[in-house]
Amino acid sequence: MKKISLLGATGSVGIQTLKVVREHTDQFSVAALAFGKNIDTALPLIHEFRPKLVSVKDKQVADKLKIQLDDGIRLVYGIEGMIEAAVFPEADFFVNAVLGSVGLEPTLAAIEAGKTIGLANKETLVTAGHLVMKRAADFSVPILPIDSEHSAIFQSMQGQDRSAVSRLILTASGGSFRDKKREDLVDVTIKDALNHPNWSMGAKITVDTATMMNKGLEVIEAHWLFDMSYEKIDTVIHRESIVHSLVEYADHSVIAQLGLPSMLVPIQYALTYPSRLKLSQTKPLNLWEIGSLHFQKVDMQRYPSVSLAYQAGKAGGSMPTVLNAANEIAVQAFLQEKIAFLDIERYVERALEQHQLIKAPDLETIEAVDKETRAFVMNQIN
Amino acid sequence: MKKISLLGATGSVGIQTLKVVREHTDQFSVAALAFGKNIDTALPLIHEFRPKLVSVKDKQVADKLKIQLDDGIRLVYGIEGMIEAAVFPEADFFVNAVLGSVGLEPTLAAIEAGKTIGLANKETLVTAGHLVMKRAADFSVPILPIDSEHSAIFQSMQGQDRSAVSRLILTASGGSFRDKKREDLVDVTIKDALNHPNWSMGAKITVDTATMMNKGLEVIEAHWLFDMSYEKIDTVIHRESIVHSLVEYADHSVIAQLGLPSMLVPIQYALTYPSRLKLSQTKPLNLWEIGSLHFQKVDMQRYPSVSLAYQAGKAGGSMPTVLNAANEIAVQAFLQEKIAFLDIERYVERALEQHQLIKAPDLETIEAVDKETRAFVMNQIN
Repeated sequence: MKKISLLGATGSVGIQTLKVVREHTDQFSVAALAFGKNIDTALPLIHEFRPKLVSVKDKQVADKLKIQLDDGIRLVYGIEGMIEAAVFPEADFFVNAVLGSVGLEPTLAAIEAGKTIGLANKETLVTAGHLVMKRAADFSVPILPIDSEHSAIFQSMQGQDRSAVSRLILTASGGSFRDKKREDLVDVTIKDALNHPNWSMGAKITVDTATMMNKGLEVIEAHWLFDMSYEKIDTVIHRESIVHSLVEYADHSVIAQLGLPSMLVPIQYALTYPSRLKLSQTKPLNLWEIGSLHFQKVDMQRYPSVSLAYQAGKAGGSMPTVLNAANEIAVQAFLQEKIAFLDIERYVERALEQHQLIKAPDLETIEAVDKETRAFVMNQIN
Repeated sequence: MKKISLLGATGSVGIQTLKVVREHTDQFSVAALAFGKNIDTALPLIHEFRPKLVSVKDKQVADKLKIQLDDGIRLVYGIEGMIEAAVFPEADFFVNAVLGSVGLEPTLAAIEAGKTIGLANKETLVTAGHLVMKRAADFSVPILPIDSEHSAIFQSMQGQDRSAVSRLILTASGGSFRDKKREDLVDVTIKDALNHPNWSMGAKITVDTATMMNKGLEVIEAHWLFDMSYEKIDTVIHRESIVHSLVEYADHSVIAQLGLPSMLVPIQYALTYPSRLKLSQTKPLNLWEIGSLHFQKVDMQRYPSVSLAYQAGKAGGSMPTVLNAANEIAVQAFLQEKIAFLDIERYVERALEQHQLIKAPDLETIEAVDKETRAFVMNQIN
């Protein structure tokens, strides 16, 4: 029985993690559960999965929830609460499914506590990949990717000659606006942006797929997860989202992972790794039903966010932190209708330009850079 | 240094095996080399790779070759010669790249001699899969597939949970006549049949891809190689031959192996397994250059050979031997312009119909059934 501590339980990945647990209650249980403020969604889940620890956003949410909770459930809140959930002694597997760089500290804490990490929070690696991977190596803790693309790469590397990996190829759906030209993006709305053709995901990540910053962040994530130089990481637009990513080897053999789009597969794979279990909530892939799969080059002029991410990644140091923080604030501003869609990448670019690179930043520096960047972008917007 | 004994050196797979050896002379050498009667092709290869043993078709060829060979090379012939090459003490890796069921005895001998087997000769498994796999298990000898599809499956199973394999999906190009309807096949010529769109292969196998009997034989081969029931082996037409085959797991995750069509990749993978080496004679796969991949269901009415193969495979016992022997004779007759293209499957079907199934046949019985079937089909044709 794997006992899970789940951060971000009411988000898209969190809910789907619980669906996997629900299918295999003989294999998995939920020891700790953290969410933000969505009590309506969380309460039935708490009643169903009976975690021993619940963590929420702040004292206000905690007070509201407290009167509805059974005795015997420990209730905590804030970043300290998240960390307590991450290191909860009765859990052995930590699923980080929160959004944004707030996921970093709990991940580091969970590593130190020796938990196996299932990582859906890509900002953790984007902002502090060097710290996280070093800590994981120091504590011999496996970091299992829950992102669909990184899980595909991870699955495509099993049993293979790692020293012979010559290229990672991340597939990208192209997002909600993939059939639009750049000049057609000037006045797209939030509703347009959130209408993703293949995947049902949260608002922030759906906007990120529309700008393709999501792919850029994944490139940086892949760099850290698989210890690959940026020169060996490629991206390709694949509109059907059937091939979830590919790994090329020295002999030009390519191994890929495929399937109908469903986050349940990478989530469950992380939980069952290196074994596999049935997953009756997903459907088999019959390629003859799909008919054809399409691939096209990622045009860096069309998707400057990808180019910005490569630049930030290659620059290294504190630069990816700036990329990520600026993007979070800009996307938030777009979702609040404060800026236009094409402004997102402009604010990110401006933030990168004004930043003085700090090499090998420690956690404190990263947090300071993150904070400064957010302030800078907010200031620019208002 | 891996020392190779190569059977079928002047055939398509044999020549390509030597291309792989040529690229990695620091890793591989040729200890023994067997071919049929093509002295013109073989002689420069013998001079280049300097095997210590050479085996040819018969005494006549041996006598002709003898005067052109250096002293110190042992020259043998016939089935005894092939077996001597297969068990040659100075070789540790046996590549069986001969065509037809003549490859069976040498394979069994090589297994008993403890050689690692690289198997390109699919008839070995089709006619006597139960004997070969049992012998390999008894002697703890790995059988590494050199067929493109089976290598793809083998590669897609590495590091995976074998108990969770739910389906093998073999891709098929559809062969030279894939764009023709069945009624258009009545008067196709040898030249038409040999004009394969993707792969450059020998005449027999190219005709087999046109009837898709090749896929049928591969289904039976896969059944034995991977110990999978026929119900769990699927086929799909994929005209570009980029996805070489796929493996589905219990969680509906699918792992596939891809690459530009080249036999060099599966050949080299068998030789380097479980490592990989560079293969500069092949080109990298860039999916955006391919643009799109197409898949369609295999229509059993259009390709009755596939259906015949499933039937023979499921019936088991001596039935696949009949399938293979009848097909070899019928294809030969087509290549000699004695019968029409559509007659091939008719003779195969007739041979299967007249045969009385023998369960768990031993080697002697298989050879007898093989011989009888050939005689029966020849008799029907003449």
